[in-house]
Amino acid sequence: MDLPYKRMKGGVCAARGFLGSAVSCGIKNPSSDRLDLSLIYSKHDCQSAGMFTQNRVKAAPVRVSQNHLRTENLRAIISNSGNANACTGPTGMQDAKSMAKVTARLLGLRQRQVAVCSTGVIGLPMPMMRIAPHYQDLVAALDRKKGNDVARAIITSDTHEKEFAISLELHGKRIRIGGCAKGAGMINPNMATMLCFITTDAHIGKTCLDDAIREAVDQTFNRITIDGDTSTNDSVLVLANGAAGNKLIEGGSRECAHFCHALTFVMNKLAKAIVRDGERVTKFVTVMVKGARNSSDARKVAQAVANSSLVKSSWNGGDPNWGRIIHAVGYSGASIREELIDISYDSKKACSGGVQSKTNPEVLRNIVSKPEFKITIDLGLGDAAHHIYSSDLSPEYVDFNRSEYAYWKQAKKDGLV
Amino acid sequence: MDLPYKRMKGGVCAARGFLGSAVSCGIKNPSSDRLDLSLIYSKHDCQSAGMFTQNRVKAAPVRVSQNHLRTENLRAIISNSGNANACTGPTGMQDAKSMAKVTARLLGLRQRQVAVCSTGVIGLPMPMMRIAPHYQDLVAALDRKKGNDVARAIITSDTHEKEFAISLELHGKRIRIGGCAKGAGMINPNMATMLCFITTDAHIGKTCLDDAIREAVDQTFNRITIDGDTSTNDSVLVLANGAAGNKLIEGGSRECAHFCHALTFVMNKLAKAIVRDGERVTKFVTVMVKGARNSSDARKVAQAVANSSLVKSSWNGGDPNWGRIIHAVGYSGASIREELIDISYDSKKACSGGVQSKTNPEVLRNIVSKPEFKITIDLGLGDAAHHIYSSDLSPEYVDFNRSEYAYWKQAKKDGLV
Repeated sequence: MDLPYKRMKGGVCAARGFLGSAVSCGIKNPSSDRLDLSLIYSKHDCQSAGMFTQNRVKAAPVRVSQNHLRTENLRAIISNSGNANACTGPTGMQDAKSMAKVTARLLGLRQRQVAVCSTGVIGLPMPMMRIAPHYQDLVAALDRKKGNDVARAIITSDTHEKEFAISLELHGKRIRIGGCAKGAGMINPNMATMLCFITTDAHIGKTCLDDAIREAVDQTFNRITIDGDTSTNDSVLVLANGAAGNKLIEGGSRECAHFCHALTFVMNKLAKAIVRDGERVTKFVTVMVKGARNSSDARKVAQAVANSSLVKSSWNGGDPNWGRIIHAVGYSGASIREELIDISYDSKKACSGGVQSKTNPEVLRNIVSKPEFKITIDLGLGDAAHHIYSSDLSPEYVDFNRSEYAYWKQAKKDGLV
Repeated sequence: MDLPYKRMKGGVCAARGFLGSAVSCGIKNPSSDRLDLSLIYSKHDCQSAGMFTQNRVKAAPVRVSQNHLRTENLRAIISNSGNANACTGPTGMQDAKSMAKVTARLLGLRQRQVAVCSTGVIGLPMPMMRIAPHYQDLVAALDRKKGNDVARAIITSDTHEKEFAISLELHGKRIRIGGCAKGAGMINPNMATMLCFITTDAHIGKTCLDDAIREAVDQTFNRITIDGDTSTNDSVLVLANGAAGNKLIEGGSRECAHFCHALTFVMNKLAKAIVRDGERVTKFVTVMVKGARNSSDARKVAQAVANSSLVKSSWNGGDPNWGRIIHAVGYSGASIREELIDISYDSKKACSGGVQSKTNPEVLRNIVSKPEFKITIDLGLGDAAHHIYSSDLSPEYVDFNRSEYAYWKQAKKDGLV
């Protein structure tokens, strides 16, 4: 690690004063015991902040959590996987509110101190009859060693949990920042992650925390893509409970900048882990655009390349097909001059001034055959740059996403539709 | 056919006074005899019009043909498949010009009366040494019965040629409109087709022909998508040679409106055929958006749904997953109100007012399991509508597009890179 951060074990309960728990209540699959309902709780009052999907179709829990954050600071997050509680109308809103309400009552909190997050299939009513019997157990199981349970309970098509934590010194005190995230599908900038929970024991002011989450999300979760689909449930929440006993970190201070940097560092680890564990992904590809006339153009080019089905298919095949890359550059909507464009795989030029370079294609092929490589597109027009972490598109991704119909059948069996 | 058009045999040589020919010169594959170089020629001077890709990276033949059309009317089109002559720099421009020049000389035309079209791999130099020995044969083979040869010579990953022709009466004279097209991959609105050549023996004025091609392309080739990728080589060309002997069709006249309608009819047949024959496509899906606040919103929603990897994967699996459809509506950028949205598969409602309808999921599943169905998304906000013809995304599409590396190896063997 090239930064003054100490990697810690654990994730969302690595910071002091945070407890976690998770149970299996059969939302993912009634006949499996996979964890699918989880709780994060702070023993102390928190400063909190959140960022949510920019999809105009917003799941009920997103609306509820946004609403709670507007007037109160969170102290708990209840979350389920297996059902997104999206496009579920007034009943869905009632269900999400009830999840917050019951949790609050059992924890002795106000309802608005509890955020609700859901992830899974869109459009099916929440099987509340599966959740209801488990609230008590969930609260009873709260423990500072259960952060990993939370990380496992929020995943859906992810193949493994994603958690990360660090500590750093601020104002002479050691503070901790840790979190967990889930991704796998419907991953695209604005926002990319479906769910990410971060906790810290830093004592931090509202202005600094609001600035830090915005900046950190912009640098991390808004720079990843798997399939170009923005979900209805994306939520990033940060809870800061001050248990580290540091002097208040105020907005605009040097310490606030340090905190923001550290938060970005943690989120970046989680964001990259989401891409690496994307649905049936075999490659992690950094798409770096530079030399753009302005940052909007740089972003357009990076997004067009990172989301092109043809480009992503060629990555899957280990094919150094720069022709498909430049064709996506061309339709990105950015200002370009074809004859100024250079494209490199790692440090090897594939396209120079808009035409095939002298590099031996075998050298390029070896790079694209690796599980991780970087594509640099230099537009040669200006100074603006942007990068996105992307993945290949595999036949297995399509196969994996062909049908969620089993969920509908289960919902019918449950009398929900 | 519900229109006063008579279906004719043939395609691009169905109209009077047009000849075609094609030869195999080994651009697609040096060891195969697949046709890959073709010529269309009018015995008479023509009125002509063209529309080209909106990709800012334009292949050399696109630049050359656009340039020719600016000052002259076309009388011939030379076209090759297997190499797009895109991103090939000054040498590529020279190659494209030389294809027009040699063709013009052999036909006794001015260079600017010849359009050049290429389709295939992007970024590799044109194997001109393969083309050069075949110009004479190509011209010698010109025949009014060789329209089908042209249709077969322009296809790449298409599984079959696409041609269509009709006749209709205008001003008491029978006129003919016919054409051929190729598609298969890199298909997205603006423009969708990679290549489409239309000929007609109508006697038609410049204003009418220009209006007609713009209107017809907007209604047809700009409303299809396979993979959301806009190619560097898309070209639609229309040549009208007046051999039918009708009175001149002037811009703004009733006859011009009839001609435009007929041209749209022909292009629509070809556009739909392109989607049906998209790379490894198994479904033809009409995405109809209505009730939008304005036409730009209607188009945004149709495009987002028609291009979502997750939506297209579910079509492949025969899964009536309206949740993924509404999630794409939400991120389309259009004004929406979730609680007003209705989504139907054919005539059966899947989503009503933003939530699951009462329709039995099995009924919906039966519709999506068909090779062809229609999705109607009613936003409930206004009167604007838009439709797009789309396809599913199959694991086989990705597998098929994993590598074009064999072309690079061949180019290396040829000393071109």
